[in-house]
Amino acid sequence: MTIENISQAKVADGWHKQFTHESDTLNCSMRFAIFLPPNASKSSPVPVLYWLSGLTCTDENFMQKAGAFKKAAELGIAIVAPDTSPRGDDVADDDGYDLGKGAGFYLNATQQPWASHYHMYDYVTKELPKLIEATFPVNNVKSISGHSMGGHGAITIGLKNPGLYQSISAFSPISHPVSCPWGQKAFNAYLGMNREDWKQYDATELLNKAQSPLPILVDQGEADSFLAEQLKPELLVAAAEKHQSPLELRMQPGYDHSYFFISTFIDEHLTFHATHLLK
Amino acid sequence: MTIENISQAKVADGWHKQFTHESDTLNCSMRFAIFLPPNASKSSPVPVLYWLSGLTCTDENFMQKAGAFKKAAELGIAIVAPDTSPRGDDVADDDGYDLGKGAGFYLNATQQPWASHYHMYDYVTKELPKLIEATFPVNNVKSISGHSMGGHGAITIGLKNPGLYQSISAFSPISHPVSCPWGQKAFNAYLGMNREDWKQYDATELLNKAQSPLPILVDQGEADSFLAEQLKPELLVAAAEKHQSPLELRMQPGYDHSYFFISTFIDEHLTFHATHLLK
Repeated sequence: MTIENISQAKVADGWHKQFTHESDTLNCSMRFAIFLPPNASKSSPVPVLYWLSGLTCTDENFMQKAGAFKKAAELGIAIVAPDTSPRGDDVADDDGYDLGKGAGFYLNATQQPWASHYHMYDYVTKELPKLIEATFPVNNVKSISGHSMGGHGAITIGLKNPGLYQSISAFSPISHPVSCPWGQKAFNAYLGMNREDWKQYDATELLNKAQSPLPILVDQGEADSFLAEQLKPELLVAAAEKHQSPLELRMQPGYDHSYFFISTFIDEHLTFHATHLLK
Repeated sequence: MTIENISQAKVADGWHKQFTHESDTLNCSMRFAIFLPPNASKSSPVPVLYWLSGLTCTDENFMQKAGAFKKAAELGIAIVAPDTSPRGDDVADDDGYDLGKGAGFYLNATQQPWASHYHMYDYVTKELPKLIEATFPVNNVKSISGHSMGGHGAITIGLKNPGLYQSISAFSPISHPVSCPWGQKAFNAYLGMNREDWKQYDATELLNKAQSPLPILVDQGEADSFLAEQLKPELLVAAAEKHQSPLELRMQPGYDHSYFFISTFIDEHLTFHATHLLK
């Protein structure tokens, strides 16, 4: 596992750094970013919040726009932001912004041409944390969060791997991809036509089956133009209530789908995760 | 003066909005952004911090990356970010990133082809504040700040218009454009070959002539790759000392020229301006 440091900038008394590495899981070169708080050291490793971004994003959107570093520095939490899909000339793509590059949906594709590279689920849950924990002054205590497609990723990955993570949060998650245009297009392409295969990557379906083993915090803007057609958090809440899962949905009046919304509430998400990461 | 609202997003309980308008001063259509804190109302207008961005920027860089809104909302300060040059197909440009569009240098050009549109000095000091104060729930109390080329703009504009502004701050300003490559290229093109004409837009030259009538706060990263060749804040300090001008330069170890640096210290700049805007 060789990784290359391609940028670094001091911020909030800590460091933002970008790295590239050859991913065995994705079969291509990948870039990720990490924020290391000022107190992180080999003798005092810190926990990590993994942030999964939404459609069209890279590792940069959250790191440049969320304004998360002051609070993360204060709490002593590292943040890792992977890319949102495999990348490179050899990687299959689609003309739409919602399929292919920038739209990996945090699953393991089974259908060609996607199955050769699109294994973001394994990348985020296995290869990336192994690399992070071998390379940086962090411990193995992790939580997971994300936005939109990445909110879907955070909730499904957290629910399926309760031993790996301490807590889950999401902004404007695609809550029931099986029943919305973004999810149906992606799952049909990546997973094939059998809808039963889709349910393993659907947050609402997972909560319909069993109680969440982890606490979940969700923020959703009421002025989000994708709310009714693509996001459907009310289905997530109904599923959570079925087995008394510890999920809190906060509807935020006036806020939209943008990073302006995320930047307003990210400190509260970091504080939420800190209570579980640092206990 | 008709202006058109082209975007709005709630953030930090206030609003970020973008507008376009036809500028008589620049003879083209311009875009600007404003952040309005939650307490701004017609019956309780708020003061305004004008933010001038650096080379290649638009109104968006600061608004998306600086993370300034929580503090501005708490203090009750509006922020206005103009573009960095005139825009449009009719506007003269240059192949370099440091001349023409995105590089207006906050001066009034006297040389063609630039003199037809490049009057950012008049735009920022006259037309834009008039438009802002006629349109939004703000009062006429103003301060000015900026980054790099915009730091140069903030200091020179503040020094030349002490009746208009309460305080000045800058991140990594081009402190002595007359003596650095960025400044020499731009001033030669916009103002012609007579170097005496350049001095009216040079922060160090202005401080060499007279005491600053306004307090000035400057932050400069020590790891800024432009520090020695382009920025030269030590010349600004020497000039300030000549007439006991109230200028504080803070050298910040490890920080570079990026918005990661700005986001780290913007709250302190807002607090500095608040002591002068809200007194």
